[in-house]
Amino acid sequence: MTYRIQHPSLGVCYYPEHWPESQWADDAAQMAAIGITHVRIGEFAWSLYEPEPGQLDFGWLLRAMDVLHAAGLKVIVGTPTATPPKWLVNQMPDMLAVDENGDARNFGSRRHYCFSHTGYRAESARIVQAMAEAVKDHPALCAWQTDNEYGCHDTIISYSDSARRDFRIWLAGKYGHNKISALNEAWGNVFWSMEYRSYDEVDLPLQPVTEINPSHMLDFRRFSSDQVRVFNAIQCHFLREATPDVPIVHNFMGWFTEFDHFDVSADLDIASWDSYPLGFLERVGPTEERRNTYAHAGDPDFQAFHHDLYRACGKVRAPEARGRWWVMEQQPGPVYWARWNPSPAPGLVRLWTHEAIAHGAELVSYFRWRQAPFAQEQYHAGLNLPDGTPDDGSREATQVAQELKALDLTCDDVRQAPVALVFDYPSVWTGQIQPQGETYDMFLAVLRWYRAARRLGLDVDIVPSGAPLDGYRLVLVPALLTLSDDAAAALAQSDAVQLFAPRTASKTPDFRIPDTLPPGALQSIVPIRVERVESLRPGLSIPLERTGAMQADFIKWREFTTPMEGAAAEAIRLTQDGHPALWQAAKRHYLCGVLEEEPLTALVAEMADMAGLDMMNLPDGVRTRTHGKTRYFFNYGDQPRDLTHFVTGDVLLGSAVTMGHDMLVVREA
Amino acid sequence: MTYRIQHPSLGVCYYPEHWPESQWADDAAQMAAIGITHVRIGEFAWSLYEPEPGQLDFGWLLRAMDVLHAAGLKVIVGTPTATPPKWLVNQMPDMLAVDENGDARNFGSRRHYCFSHTGYRAESARIVQAMAEAVKDHPALCAWQTDNEYGCHDTIISYSDSARRDFRIWLAGKYGHNKISALNEAWGNVFWSMEYRSYDEVDLPLQPVTEINPSHMLDFRRFSSDQVRVFNAIQCHFLREATPDVPIVHNFMGWFTEFDHFDVSADLDIASWDSYPLGFLERVGPTEERRNTYAHAGDPDFQAFHHDLYRACGKVRAPEARGRWWVMEQQPGPVYWARWNPSPAPGLVRLWTHEAIAHGAELVSYFRWRQAPFAQEQYHAGLNLPDGTPDDGSREATQVAQELKALDLTCDDVRQAPVALVFDYPSVWTGQIQPQGETYDMFLAVLRWYRAARRLGLDVDIVPSGAPLDGYRLVLVPALLTLSDDAAAALAQSDAVQLFAPRTASKTPDFRIPDTLPPGALQSIVPIRVERVESLRPGLSIPLERTGAMQADFIKWREFTTPMEGAAAEAIRLTQDGHPALWQAAKRHYLCGVLEEEPLTALVAEMADMAGLDMMNLPDGVRTRTHGKTRYFFNYGDQPRDLTHFVTGDVLLGSAVTMGHDMLVVREA
Amino acid sequence: MTYRIQHPSLGVCYYPEHWPESQWADDAAQMAAIGITHVRIGEFAWSLYEPEPGQLDFGWLLRAMDVLHAAGLKVIVGTPTATPPKWLVNQMPDMLAVDENGDARNFGSRRHYCFSHTGYRAESARIVQAMAEAVKDHPALCAWQTDNEYGCHDTIISYSDSARRDFRIWLAGKYGHNKISALNEAWGNVFWSMEYRSYDEVDLPLQPVTEINPSHMLDFRRFSSDQVRVFNAIQCHFLREATPDVPIVHNFMGWFTEFDHFDVSADLDIASWDSYPLGFLERVGPTEERRNTYAHAGDPDFQAFHHDLYRACGKVRAPEARGRWWVMEQQPGPVYWARWNPSPAPGLVRLWTHEAIAHGAELVSYFRWRQAPFAQEQYHAGLNLPDGTPDDGSREATQVAQELKALDLTCDDVRQAPVALVFDYPSVWTGQIQPQGETYDMFLAVLRWYRAARRLGLDVDIVPSGAPLDGYRLVLVPALLTLSDDAAAALAQSDAVQLFAPRTASKTPDFRIPDTLPPGALQSIVPIRVERVESLRPGLSIPLERTGAMQADFIKWREFTTPMEGAAAEAIRLTQDGHPALWQAAKRHYLCGVLEEEPLTALVAEMADMAGLDMMNLPDGVRTRTHGKTRYFFNYGDQPRDLTHFVTGDVLLGSAVTMGHDMLVVREA
Repeated sequence: MTYRIQHPSLGVCYYPEHWPESQWADDAAQMAAIGITHVRIGEFAWSLYEPEPGQLDFGWLLRAMDVLHAAGLKVIVGTPTATPPKWLVNQMPDMLAVDENGDARNFGSRRHYCFSHTGYRAESARIVQAMAEAVKDHPALCAWQTDNEYGCHDTIISYSDSARRDFRIWLAGKYGHNKISALNEAWGNVFWSMEYRSYDEVDLPLQPVTEINPSHMLDFRRFSSDQVRVFNAIQCHFLREATPDVPIVHNFMGWFTEFDHFDVSADLDIASWDSYPLGFLERVGPTEERRNTYAHAGDPDFQAFHHDLYRACGKVRAPEARGRWWVMEQQPGPVYWARWNPSPAPGLVRLWTHEAIAHGAELVSYFRWRQAPFAQEQYHAGLNLPDGTPDDGSREATQVAQELKALDLTCDDVRQAPVALVFDYPSVWTGQIQPQGETYDMFLAVLRWYRAARRLGLDVDIVPSGAPLDGYRLVLVPALLTLSDDAAAALAQSDAVQLFAPRTASKTPDFRIPDTLPPGALQSIVPIRVERVESLRPGLSIPLERTGAMQADFIKWREFTTPMEGAAAEAIRLTQDGHPALWQAAKRHYLCGVLEEEPLTALVAEMADMAGLDMMNLPDGVRTRTHGKTRYFFNYGDQPRDLTHFVTGDVLLGSAVTMGHDMLVVREA
Repeated sequence: MTYRIQHPSLGVCYYPEHWPESQWADDAAQMAAIGITHVRIGEFAWSLYEPEPGQLDFGWLLRAMDVLHAAGLKVIVGTPTATPPKWLVNQMPDMLAVDENGDARNFGSRRHYCFSHTGYRAESARIVQAMAEAVKDHPALCAWQTDNEYGCHDTIISYSDSARRDFRIWLAGKYGHNKISALNEAWGNVFWSMEYRSYDEVDLPLQPVTEINPSHMLDFRRFSSDQVRVFNAIQCHFLREATPDVPIVHNFMGWFTEFDHFDVSADLDIASWDSYPLGFLERVGPTEERRNTYAHAGDPDFQAFHHDLYRACGKVRAPEARGRWWVMEQQPGPVYWARWNPSPAPGLVRLWTHEAIAHGAELVSYFRWRQAPFAQEQYHAGLNLPDGTPDDGSREATQVAQELKALDLTCDDVRQAPVALVFDYPSVWTGQIQPQGETYDMFLAVLRWYRAARRLGLDVDIVPSGAPLDGYRLVLVPALLTLSDDAAAALAQSDAVQLFAPRTASKTPDFRIPDTLPPGALQSIVPIRVERVESLRPGLSIPLERTGAMQADFIKWREFTTPMEGAAAEAIRLTQDGHPALWQAAKRHYLCGVLEEEPLTALVAEMADMAGLDMMNLPDGVRTRTHGKTRYFFNYGDQPRDLTHFVTGDVLLGSAVTMGHDMLVVREA
Repeated sequence: MTYRIQHPSLGVCYYPEHWPESQWADDAAQMAAIGITHVRIGEFAWSLYEPEPGQLDFGWLLRAMDVLHAAGLKVIVGTPTATPPKWLVNQMPDMLAVDENGDARNFGSRRHYCFSHTGYRAESARIVQAMAEAVKDHPALCAWQTDNEYGCHDTIISYSDSARRDFRIWLAGKYGHNKISALNEAWGNVFWSMEYRSYDEVDLPLQPVTEINPSHMLDFRRFSSDQVRVFNAIQCHFLREATPDVPIVHNFMGWFTEFDHFDVSADLDIASWDSYPLGFLERVGPTEERRNTYAHAGDPDFQAFHHDLYRACGKVRAPEARGRWWVMEQQPGPVYWARWNPSPAPGLVRLWTHEAIAHGAELVSYFRWRQAPFAQEQYHAGLNLPDGTPDDGSREATQVAQELKALDLTCDDVRQAPVALVFDYPSVWTGQIQPQGETYDMFLAVLRWYRAARRLGLDVDIVPSGAPLDGYRLVLVPALLTLSDDAAAALAQSDAVQLFAPRTASKTPDFRIPDTLPPGALQSIVPIRVERVESLRPGLSIPLERTGAMQADFIKWREFTTPMEGAAAEAIRLTQDGHPALWQAAKRHYLCGVLEEEPLTALVAEMADMAGLDMMNLPDGVRTRTHGKTRYFFNYGDQPRDLTHFVTGDVLLGSAVTMGHDMLVVREA
């Protein structure tokens, strides 16, 4: 029977190999003392498991697990394939990934391997099997983590000879072994004489003179994603073979779309991600002003979005379940990898932890137990300082552990949200391959729509494109550039209010313009034709006609649309130059351009209102989320906010006037 | 007898190979119906002409020409050498060009060849001969286009082994086979021990530690340009051999100076260029404000400049003629390759077409007939949508065709302009090789001077440096960094008012400072010495003394000059710090710094006034151009402009109060 | 007996090989006539010394020296190893350095060699020996210059095979031949399985997937620096062997920290540097406003800082002496290598020259005698124009020569300054390897502290970390990220007022966090612990509590600190959020963040006041420096400044109301 966590719990990432064995027991005791119940270990230690080729030694790992077990801790064991040792690289140097310049990406840090390398796949299988065999019966073992952060440091795409060989095989599998003409047709290779006579003529999109055929590129992106899936599946196979009841997890990242996480999740029992709010804010915050406002707190929606995204990943293997997911690495203090690395304001480590749990996390595990005084991550805070003194993160984790006891939540309480946001990785790739306008980022678009719903106090589920939409009352489709038959059917079957962004279904899965023009596969439910698009430089905008409260402009992008013949679609908003801005076909709506945050939020509010949803007029920086009957409010701002009129039950935690960086938890009757 | 176009006509670029053969006849009929008379085809279809090595098939091309011919259309056939098929690249992988990092520029898009590769030159000759042989007697054939957009995607310069070998041969040809000492002397290789003992020691300027000898680089640029000339000449040779009376054209680009277009034009009967006003505006518009103002219309001077430039190219082979030139590709809607790609405002496709004709274009050919729903250019609009529906471009082209009938112009009406702007490609290279100040771009400088004349309502001819200047009353020399003997003689013989920019004749053709200091070869007519130059960072400027209306500053660049002994030159303007700012020697003037747009325009106006030219005080965004007795006004702005007081004849088209994005045509008595 | 210069003198860099031999005598006479006494020659002429392999010819060099000698000039002869000829590169192509992409850095300019290449070291030794043998007895010979500007064009670091081999040897030497475990331990290679089994497994940090182990990188930086030291030492060895009494000098650069100049200086008798105030301003000026204000004058502190830095280098070989140093190349007019290259305002060449002498320069040598009309440096002004006419630089040099006679200074008058600024190259590398905040540049931090002292009118000595601090009353430590035992001891022994910047001693020399947390080695005298740091994006700041006049914020960086148990340290300033901002332990002070220029200057003033130093409230743009009893004031601004109340002795030069770009010299009684 698969290991399960009944009540939201805390964990920590620990590297016994970095510290004297004599210290382990104290560490374990201290972990348990502050309320930690789970420990992840072992994922970077190949050179210790196998210091010389073939000389395996898992003794120290087992001893470490013994110590942790003795303290009552459960252990997640990571496979070490993210850090193959130097002797292995020297044995087969072509296992290294190759970058966009054709150069090897060398040993000296981590993730120095190409997913397509047959030899490395075999070596990975070997070490995973050996590890599983060594550890499988240990009573502390509660889960496996495969590898670590697939794709970190831009490692999904490799232009290696292995990738070239596998790509050709993959294409032959997709288009048919003797059907290179099918590939030529699908890609439109008649254009620019790009026709191939055999799969052996097809190359990786490495340093072409100018942009490669987008269909070629999209297939390469799909292939590259698939290589991750296969690499992970091999590990899962051997892990399940050894321990059928130990759940398998992988720690995904934030702001990362280079492979299809839904696909990879099909082999996982639990999804998890590594949540570094401040590091990510520096990378992706939408404006300088917002980045400064939230520099010490993190973006109010970024974490929540990923919580919901990875809860969706946790459902892939078990669609009927609630979506098992963890935060495998939670930022406990400043990190080191952003352009600037501020310190979290007091209270944020606590807030982030609770917020993950509010979104359904079974486990929030801090990274790391103790700050490492050597190597690359010296500036990455831990729960404890390098000399062992507890740091602020430790104190906040201790507080969370106590509060969790008081809240007494059950993981299974999480409910389906009223709003679905449909998401799809290949659509992001499609938008990246042909952006058409430099500042229209698909992932940011998705985040902006998510933010709009969340500012209205709505719980949101992320739903993979193609999955059923039963039970949702509002469906948001911010960036679904391609639409599978399943996805079109799910949308058609849903009776929710639906809002589609521009570019929806603008490309076929082969990366062509649909025969009937965009939105192709959507036209059966939204009967319009997109005849022309234009992208708009910063500073250019297309004003809409004032209708009621909404004064808005299209920025970045607008589309020129017409109704299909005899179509039951009405242009319910127009641009000032007389073109449709918003189409309505029954409960479905198609937006013909990109809106700024405020009018977008107003539009989503209109849709939610039409769907009969209750919304909240939340103060700036405040967000809310329910966990069963428990409602959380999180104040990401640094000023107090009076939330009295939102309190509809018993206050479990905090007070109605919620201080800056503080939170409020209410339980409904 | 060479094919000629008597009356300005419309054309279109068409790819029969992209569409079912059954559709061709309808397409042709529709083209003819909207007023199109010429069709360019065939230039990217090598893989269809020769699907397997040696298996030639021009049948489909001939059938397509039959269909077009049947509809009364003339056909321009393009040679397919811009897109060699994959099997050819596989046969000789070293035919690929090599980039500045030493890496091959691979197959997968287009222009994947090195101009210096002997094998590829032979293969190009072979396919061109075969094509010419197959097509030469077809009655629809009216012109050949060689290759496509030489240099697109930065493909002029290649660091291949072929280029290295040819460069050495080229140098030996230039400096003498046993005279490496001549090269050493010309380049000043005594500096930094760069002396060579033989041509075999000379390398390409690939990844030197710091900047390479500028003379070395200039010779490499000249060589690289020459390789294009030779590559094109080979095709022209075989085409003329097959069809002596079919004119040969190449479609040049805008904003492109990587090879000497005058040199290449010596082998062409007609010059043409590909005019994408919105795409270019995004690339090169001078200020953010201007880019926003004209985002939907294009820069008011950019197209006109290139029209005049390529009219000059059309004169190279036939200097006594008016300069035959076409627009081979005219933007018909949004494109896909700029950072942002807005939609042309209604009316612009029409305006651009007329403007080209006003500048003497015989043919304006739209790119492309129908938007391709696959491959790289999916977001490039055509006259028709991918599903065949006519798009706005089609409607505007139809209107132009009707208006052209009404205007009834003869191509031969075009007259010499009163103003000559002398231009030279090697001078641009010289300025790029040693910019000395990062923000002083030679090509932009030329455009700024052109704009100044054009804002004054003056017609301008671009004149290659060294060509006679007879008949011009004002000669502008904005960026002639090197001056050949011919050029110096032409300037000396001209009795026009002349205005020279700073840096004129500042380098010898060998890239040295002239023995007598700059402006070296110009000193016989402008007897001054430039003793020192300084480049100025943005924000720094050198104020001039107020003289009359002109309050101005030097920006970017200023020169410290003195008169030559006993010189008849007068400093008629000074800087506030007491240095000469403008020299006058009879009718010749030398400007000692760079002026902003307004004072530059005022200065050009002074010069034009001195030359006795009539000028117009055109409203913002309005430009004018004469075509024989026909005068056009183009309103690039979006606001109406009252042009009543400029109307000096019969209004043929439009009204004196010209709407935004509209035009006015007047015929003088 | 080593050649010495008694009175500050002027020199010039001269390239007889660039000019006809017939011109040499006139040049020499003209040099002498304007007051020049020293000439540097020969450093780029290998291809003339050895036009064919093994065919040596120093005849022309000796003839040039004869001519200079005849005019009474002393000659500094440069070894030509910065410009190996092409035939040598062709003999051993692997002598080229390799860049960070793994590509060779090719012939065609200069510095095309790898410091680690054994063959090139041998060839360098050979040409140096031959040159020394040829020239050693020439009566004009007064000094040797080794090579030219080590590291110019980023040439210190090379990823060549030679470097790889030598790096392994270097590591084995450092950690012990059979002690790879010592390296693994020092670097913390247990992290991410980076452990090596032998030195042969250690690679250069070339294109790792993400950041390499910082200890690895620091060792590579140390190694790369060491290779320069060795390369230079070989030349020094052979030069001293030939001419024991001829001093050896190398011309260092400004704003350059890629190798440890103190180490290299251990083999030099005299340090020198190449001072290009305007070129450097464009590169490193702190703000746009300052860059514009001083565009024609240079930063008021940049030159002085380097004068003081290289005076310190001149003391390394002879610690008891005053520090012999020269300006080997002094900017005489505009240069060519900055992004923009303005002309020095009139008077600046004179001012820069005097300022160098005020800081103790024995010799200021202009680069170059005559502007070269060919090759890379055509836009680099000389004292004379290419046609031989004297340029402004020549006139100002002439004036300086006359003024020097009047001032009659003795080089030995230079005195120890009251303020020491402790500097260390490896600390700069440490800050570059792990910046933690993108905008916190170590070298700029040092310059900012130097500027603060200098704005207060204080003379400053730069002191290498670890050197004694006897006699100093104020010690500034702006960027000492690592602290050797010697350095800690010197600080402990000093009874000066001391001010330490954040990050002081934050890393061990192995690049680890100290066991007792930062400031590790400093804790014996500043008993605090840095528990956490945060870096701050532009726009973020941490306000300090107002205390007296000082209203300040931390920018870029702040530290969270606590006192050590029982420590005698007091937090004498706090941040508004309640953390210590400034610690005091007796006369030692530790600052917990980065201050803007004004509050930093105020803080240094407090420290200087505590140390009992007299300060001056200098007007904006004015700086002062003493040379024995002679006090100079330099007005870098363009406005007059009344310095009357600073005049405490006889005015030797200038007037108390000092014009813009002018200077004032006063001699104390």
